[in-house]
Amino acid sequence: ARINIPEIIYGEYKTADQTMEMAEAFLSKHSQVLISRSSCHKEIINHFSGQYKIEETPNLLAIGERPPERGNVLVISAGAADHPVTAECALALKALGVKPHVFEDRGIAHPTRVLDAVIEGMKQNVSAVVVVAGMEGALAPFVSSLVPLPVIGVPTSVGYGFRAKEAALTSMLASCAPNLTVVNIDGGIRAAVVSGLIAKNQ
Amino acid sequence: ARINIPEIIYGEYKTADQTMEMAEAFLSKHSQVLISRSSCHKEIINHFSGQYKIEETPNLLAIGERPPERGNVLVISAGAADHPVTAECALALKALGVKPHVFEDRGIAHPTRVLDAVIEGMKQNVSAVVVVAGMEGALAPFVSSLVPLPVIGVPTSVGYGFRAKEAALTSMLASCAPNLTVVNIDGGIRAAVVSGLIAKNQ
Amino acid sequence: ARINIPEIIYGEYKTADQTMEMAEAFLSKHSQVLISRSSCHKEIINHFSGQYKIEETPNLLAIGERPPERGNVLVISAGAADHPVTAECALALKALGVKPHVFEDRGIAHPTRVLDAVIEGMKQNVSAVVVVAGMEGALAPFVSSLVPLPVIGVPTSVGYGFRAKEAALTSMLASCAPNLTVVNIDGGIRAAVVSGLIAKNQ
Amino acid sequence: ARINIPEIIYGEYKTADQTMEMAEAFLSKHSQVLISRSSCHKEIINHFSGQYKIEETPNLLAIGERPPERGNVLVISAGAADHPVTAECALALKALGVKPHVFEDRGIAHPTRVLDAVIEGMKQNVSAVVVVAGMEGALAPFVSSLVPLPVIGVPTSVGYGFRAKEAALTSMLASCAPNLTVVNIDGGIRAAVVSGLIAKNQ
Amino acid sequence: ARINIPEIIYGEYKTADQTMEMAEAFLSKHSQVLISRSSCHKEIINHFSGQYKIEETPNLLAIGERPPERGNVLVISAGAADHPVTAECALALKALGVKPHVFEDRGIAHPTRVLDAVIEGMKQNVSAVVVVAGMEGALAPFVSSLVPLPVIGVPTSVGYGFRAKEAALTSMLASCAPNLTVVNIDGGIRAAVVSGLIAKNQ
Amino acid sequence: ARINIPEIIYGEYKTADQTMEMAEAFLSKHSQVLISRSSCHKEIINHFSGQYKIEETPNLLAIGERPPERGNVLVISAGAADHPVTAECALALKALGVKPHVFEDRGIAHPTRVLDAVIEGMKQNVSAVVVVAGMEGALAPFVSSLVPLPVIGVPTSVGYGFRAKEAALTSMLASCAPNLTVVNIDGGIRAAVVSGLIAKNQ
Amino acid sequence: ARINIPEIIYGEYKTADQTMEMAEAFLSKHSQVLISRSSCHKEIINHFSGQYKIEETPNLLAIGERPPERGNVLVISAGAADHPVTAECALALKALGVKPHVFEDRGIAHPTRVLDAVIEGMKQNVSAVVVVAGMEGALAPFVSSLVPLPVIGVPTSVGYGFRAKEAALTSMLASCAPNLTVVNIDGGIRAAVVSGLIAKNQ
Amino acid sequence: ARINIPEIIYGEYKTADQTMEMAEAFLSKHSQVLISRSSCHKEIINHFSGQYKIEETPNLLAIGERPPERGNVLVISAGAADHPVTAECALALKALGVKPHVFEDRGIAHPTRVLDAVIEGMKQNVSAVVVVAGMEGALAPFVSSLVPLPVIGVPTSVGYGFRAKEAALTSMLASCAPNLTVVNIDGGIRAAVVSGLIAKNQ
Ligand SMILES: Nc1ncnc2c1ncn2[C@@H]1O[C@H](COP(=O)(O)O)[C@@H](O)[C@H]1O
Ligand SMILES: Nc1ncnc2c1ncn2[C@@H]1O[C@H](COP(=O)(O)O)[C@@H](O)[C@H]1O
Ligand SMILES: Nc1ncnc2c1ncn2[C@@H]1O[C@H](COP(=O)(O)O)[C@@H](O)[C@H]1O
Ligand SMILES: Nc1ncnc2c1ncn2[C@@H]1O[C@H](COP(=O)(O)O)[C@@H](O)[C@H]1O
Ligand SMILES: [Mg+2]
Ligand SMILES: [Mg+2]
Ligand SMILES: [Mg+2]
Ligand SMILES: [Mg+2]
Ligand SMILES: [Mg+2]
Ligand SMILES: [Mg+2]
Ligand SMILES: [Mg+2]
Ligand SMILES: [Mg+2]
Repeated sequence: ARINIPEIIYGEYKTADQTMEMAEAFLSKHSQVLISRSSCHKEIINHFSGQYKIEETPNLLAIGERPPERGNVLVISAGAADHPVTAECALALKALGVKPHVFEDRGIAHPTRVLDAVIEGMKQNVSAVVVVAGMEGALAPFVSSLVPLPVIGVPTSVGYGFRAKEAALTSMLASCAPNLTVVNIDGGIRAAVVSGLIAKNQ
Repeated sequence: ARINIPEIIYGEYKTADQTMEMAEAFLSKHSQVLISRSSCHKEIINHFSGQYKIEETPNLLAIGERPPERGNVLVISAGAADHPVTAECALALKALGVKPHVFEDRGIAHPTRVLDAVIEGMKQNVSAVVVVAGMEGALAPFVSSLVPLPVIGVPTSVGYGFRAKEAALTSMLASCAPNLTVVNIDGGIRAAVVSGLIAKNQ
Repeated sequence: ARINIPEIIYGEYKTADQTMEMAEAFLSKHSQVLISRSSCHKEIINHFSGQYKIEETPNLLAIGERPPERGNVLVISAGAADHPVTAECALALKALGVKPHVFEDRGIAHPTRVLDAVIEGMKQNVSAVVVVAGMEGALAPFVSSLVPLPVIGVPTSVGYGFRAKEAALTSMLASCAPNLTVVNIDGGIRAAVVSGLIAKNQ
Repeated sequence: ARINIPEIIYGEYKTADQTMEMAEAFLSKHSQVLISRSSCHKEIINHFSGQYKIEETPNLLAIGERPPERGNVLVISAGAADHPVTAECALALKALGVKPHVFEDRGIAHPTRVLDAVIEGMKQNVSAVVVVAGMEGALAPFVSSLVPLPVIGVPTSVGYGFRAKEAALTSMLASCAPNLTVVNIDGGIRAAVVSGLIAKNQ
Repeated sequence: ARINIPEIIYGEYKTADQTMEMAEAFLSKHSQVLISRSSCHKEIINHFSGQYKIEETPNLLAIGERPPERGNVLVISAGAADHPVTAECALALKALGVKPHVFEDRGIAHPTRVLDAVIEGMKQNVSAVVVVAGMEGALAPFVSSLVPLPVIGVPTSVGYGFRAKEAALTSMLASCAPNLTVVNIDGGIRAAVVSGLIAKNQ
Repeated sequence: ARINIPEIIYGEYKTADQTMEMAEAFLSKHSQVLISRSSCHKEIINHFSGQYKIEETPNLLAIGERPPERGNVLVISAGAADHPVTAECALALKALGVKPHVFEDRGIAHPTRVLDAVIEGMKQNVSAVVVVAGMEGALAPFVSSLVPLPVIGVPTSVGYGFRAKEAALTSMLASCAPNLTVVNIDGGIRAAVVSGLIAKNQ
Repeated sequence: ARINIPEIIYGEYKTADQTMEMAEAFLSKHSQVLISRSSCHKEIINHFSGQYKIEETPNLLAIGERPPERGNVLVISAGAADHPVTAECALALKALGVKPHVFEDRGIAHPTRVLDAVIEGMKQNVSAVVVVAGMEGALAPFVSSLVPLPVIGVPTSVGYGFRAKEAALTSMLASCAPNLTVVNIDGGIRAAVVSGLIAKNQ
Repeated sequence: ARINIPEIIYGEYKTADQTMEMAEAFLSKHSQVLISRSSCHKEIINHFSGQYKIEETPNLLAIGERPPERGNVLVISAGAADHPVTAECALALKALGVKPHVFEDRGIAHPTRVLDAVIEGMKQNVSAVVVVAGMEGALAPFVSSLVPLPVIGVPTSVGYGFRAKEAALTSMLASCAPNLTVVNIDGGIRAAVVSGLIAKNQ
């Protein structure tokens, strides 16, 4: 029913059997299904691997055929610890048929490395930017100040100490960057859907 | 420097004089300036009204010439109490040169009124949807399930009792709608900039 | 002493032996006992299975004879992940002698599926509605707007990210639906007792 | 549309004019309207007093004709400071056509005074109990242990110090009383609608 | 140095060796030492059991000779789940040389059982009352209203759902019982020291 | 009913008339009444001043005859800003018939001034110590380490910035001082009742 | 007693008379006194202005003679709204005898303006950097990445919406900048004392 | 690029291979690298131990050659449970080429032991003081009142019960000690870098 958005199964709390049954039901009607936050990757991959093309990141499985590629999104992440969320976002963009241009380990501690990523990305004619960052999340407002595009911030649960899991979210919401919008903590897939819709519709 | 985004002065905590001085500096270089959350509307309007076109909502002043109109955004709000934020969003969209299609008082208590607004809005060829809602903010995930577009939720500080000012934000962040992204509480202007950039670039 | 409410043992933090001793004491005086949130289902079932009728869900055991059936309650849940709480609620209703009419996987992402459940349920002459939902919990105010009955919302701890375990509770409390009341997070048994008393007394 | 529930205008954030316009619209189609949390009682009363029957409590106005009386609810409150919420609940019950039996100043500090209220109330053949209490809210679980009926707890914002406005809510949600359900802080009107629907349908 | 209070080693985060070394140092100078929240009971008991009298509860070890008995304290707890904290409090009282009079499983759901405990306890000429309770903690203000003595509330981390670990603390602090004072969550030992000092000095 | 504790009217949220009516009722049966947190001191003093002895502090009125003096309590406060709470505590002690020995402005910044107060106080044969402190509340654990007596900490709402109103409470609860117990923020009267009961019963 | 740190009176909650009496006592022994967060500037200035040199910012009064100047500190602030805290910090540095080099309105939205301030400041041979910033506080980690010096972050209470007053603090604490340390929200004076001691001792 | 600060790899969330690869890259350009919060100490030590000097504490690895020693810092910790953070701080200071003077188990319960540490430390000509403390963290303001130096407080996550992991942080931020600044919870390494830069630059 939701045009342009692939079917997504929320895998957490579900058994392998429940998940595979739902996935099969979707695949009988659609060419592709995504499974997020499942703890049963192995069983699911075994089950579908003969029949369908499967791609995997720690938090996401994409099963089936992708739509033809159209549109570009820039994805910048702060550190290696954010990789699972960054990879989830990139894979979900590909599943939407949008090309992600990914630059990792671009924390605000090295401003010139951030700039390089932005310049390189802008050359790819991207329609939106996704910033994945934990800890104080300062990368998101910094990047937002550099691009004339909608920025989707993905705060991650990376960090320790005071409000460790909420610091990046807090800081991205409180930011004065007017072109910065935010999704839930570790919400790589939501950032992909929003930025992907922007890029595809363009 | 930030192409496509009008200059915005954050008016809170500033005196009328500070604000007007900054506004004049911007207007000497740009054709337009926005002033948000100022408590000195009267003085500022008096000061600039002869010279410039001014438009006002409770939280926002737009001073100067707008860019030519290009692109459309659908704005749906839950209740009359959300009006100041809705109006701020609509005016900021106009200031960006984007046409807002506004439907107010469309709370989830009357699902058919929500549907009417979505159908009417989709006919206008909008590129994004802004949902303004307080209390439990359930309108945002509901609208998101109905449109194949990026949705920007603006939680408002309307409500009373438990986490009165944070309930809508919490609920929009926690939502399972994959095309829903969120800005800060009462952040009408940020929703306008993000949705406006989407609409203009299309 | 509490007429109309079966004896409930709070199983968490108790050993199998403590729990079974208490259960036996109750069963020597009453025809039925419920054991909630125990981690010793196996031992308890082994112990009582010859002697008593036992029914089990992940969070609840019902041991003994039920009262004659009287009254109907509609139970709607948002997703598969809410199943343990939904099942606890349904079993507790049965233990009270009330007939639950259960519709699962009726998230707000598919409004027509919600409507179907409400219409089907209303045909069963129900006296109250229980809504079980996690994440943003928007299902509860939505259902409340559709029925002229008391609605008991059960927020579940399903979700991730910001206030993952409290989002549904926050949103149900903040709701403007006047016929919606709330129990503790994952409180399926309390929703059953409240809705069951309503249905039985009718 | 919502059978059995009177129309309620949420008065906070609305001007007298907005409120009266909405009230008139409702009164042209329904025999009664409620206005909650308005700060414009005087203007509204002046406007409608010739034409309609009006009843007032600090947080609520009831304008128009009530339905015929049917059903009884017991309302117990902890202290004098809870009076505005207690009165709002009682008036809303009357507006629904349900008879409230109100006992105030029955804090847990005087258990025998609580017992007297419960005994006296039970004689009136009530179908539900509303408990209004601030501070630690211990009255709600105490009353719940004494009655074989659904209890609707209304935590009030009365108190000072640590989590002053949330202590009663926290304690009512965490309670192990299985027949206790809860509404938002100061939600007298919601408790009235829920308990009133229970009483009317019986 | 602290007269009247036995030496207490905080066992959490310490290895068995660190703990035993410290315990030996104290025992070379004092007749008794307490070890709280250690996860190395077995090693410690093995090490000292030949040489010293040892008493154990899940959260506390008392090693060495007690002072002569003097003074009485009433200890009432709400449920079986509170037992570890109740036992810790009782053992620490004995270590101080004070006699605890313990009544468990006296939740507010059964007011007469609470009354029995209070009446029985008051006959023992107690100088203070300790109330151990989790969930909504309503037992503490209820008992406080019944006794003309200082009451020390020990909120426990027993419960689930909203603010599960803090509900009893919140409610005891917010209480209007003027003779109720509070210690940290699960702080059985602190309640013992405070009530024990009261009883001993009398 | 509550032997040894004077009647206390909670004055907040009550009108002068309500308060005076309650006070008169109490005074017709008891020799004394306390009124806490009232905003109507003037009217109340005018009303009762001819007939009764009245003593006043910013947060408390004591009206009527005190019991004969018996017992001593040491009261130490950190700073001048804590004075209203300190004065409330001292007056309530006097109303109980207990002699307070008060030392103010003894913040931890001047450890020798703290020591002086403790030494001086201990000479008065006190049975308990009340410590009144805001900001980080470090005075309470420091004093607790110096006295072999029960200490009642009264965290005040003095301070600014992060958790300004809760810092002292947090720190007193978390303290490792075993003889330290805590009352609600600004709860001077509760500290007086608890410490007063200790002193009187001795 | 505290060498190198001027006496500071915490003015909040104190009357003009209390404050002036304390100030006079200090001035009779020391050459200078600071008064922070007082609401009685006018009376205090009137009282002392003939006799002493007085300097004023919205949150701070410095009365008396400064020590000879020694050492330099760089002070960078994000926006005009942070001015009161920035000015408090600068005045306190001067009172310590340290020279502040102040650059305001250097938000992260304009990275080159931040860089200019850092380069200009570093030329002044500063020993430490103070960063004053509200909202998301991203300026602090950004500056920290640019200087080989201790940085003291002062989060301000500037902002609106989610955790408006705590966002900058949260983000500065969570930051991965190893040379960044933090003081309380709006703690301009503490940043001055810490950075001033660093500069003076060098 | 960051002069005077050794390269630090944030080891949490990283595999041994990722970590070692990054460490090698740094060691090819710098003489030393630090690895914090890694869970792969064994593999990393095996890998580098032949080639480089390695020093280890539970939370930190220092690999390579240290700069020549210059400057002194006093490190005081409250209890044995704080040892891992204290050791991390001391090792990081050594890695910076600064000499730490460490005094452990100096809780506020024994004020004379605190004093001894301060006196002994001050003899070493230290330039700054680091205070490591959990629970109520009262040691930090106490030490701050005794030294005319910048103090860096490191709140630890040691404690249990109410806000167990945040109590020390809350209390250090709220403190009225003007020379006290704070780092994130368990942030031993940040305290080392800040105090080390102070000591080295002196
Ligand atoms: N990681 C995720 N975060 C948020 N929403 C999700 C996620 N994965 C799936 N969903 C949404 O959850 C719903 C599917 O839930 P279910 O029917 O339980 O599989 C759909 O609306 C999905 O778009
Ligand atoms: N005090 C109240 N608490 C909760 N909901 C309310 C209250 N007053 C009105 N409402 C609901 O708020 C909605 C009216 O919003 P509005 O259209 O802004 O007047 C209706 O759904 C009412 O049932
Ligand atoms: N899952 C549950 N949630 C809330 N209360 C419960 C639950 N299970 C049992 N109880 C209540 O807990 C009390 C039993 O406690 P206990 O005596 O410890 O078994 C009774 O009042 C029950 O009604
Ligand atoms: N400042 C106070 N803090 C806590 N409890 C109080 C206070 N003042 C009065 N009370 C208690 O509140 C109850 C009186 O409530 P009320 O009947 O509303 O006057 C009695 O139980 C008093 O002991
Ligand atoms: Mg990096
Ligand atoms: Mg409406
Ligand atoms: Mg579903
Ligand atoms: Mg009362
Ligand atoms: Mg029980
Ligand atoms: Mg002082
Ligand atoms: Mg600026
Ligand atoms: Mg120690």
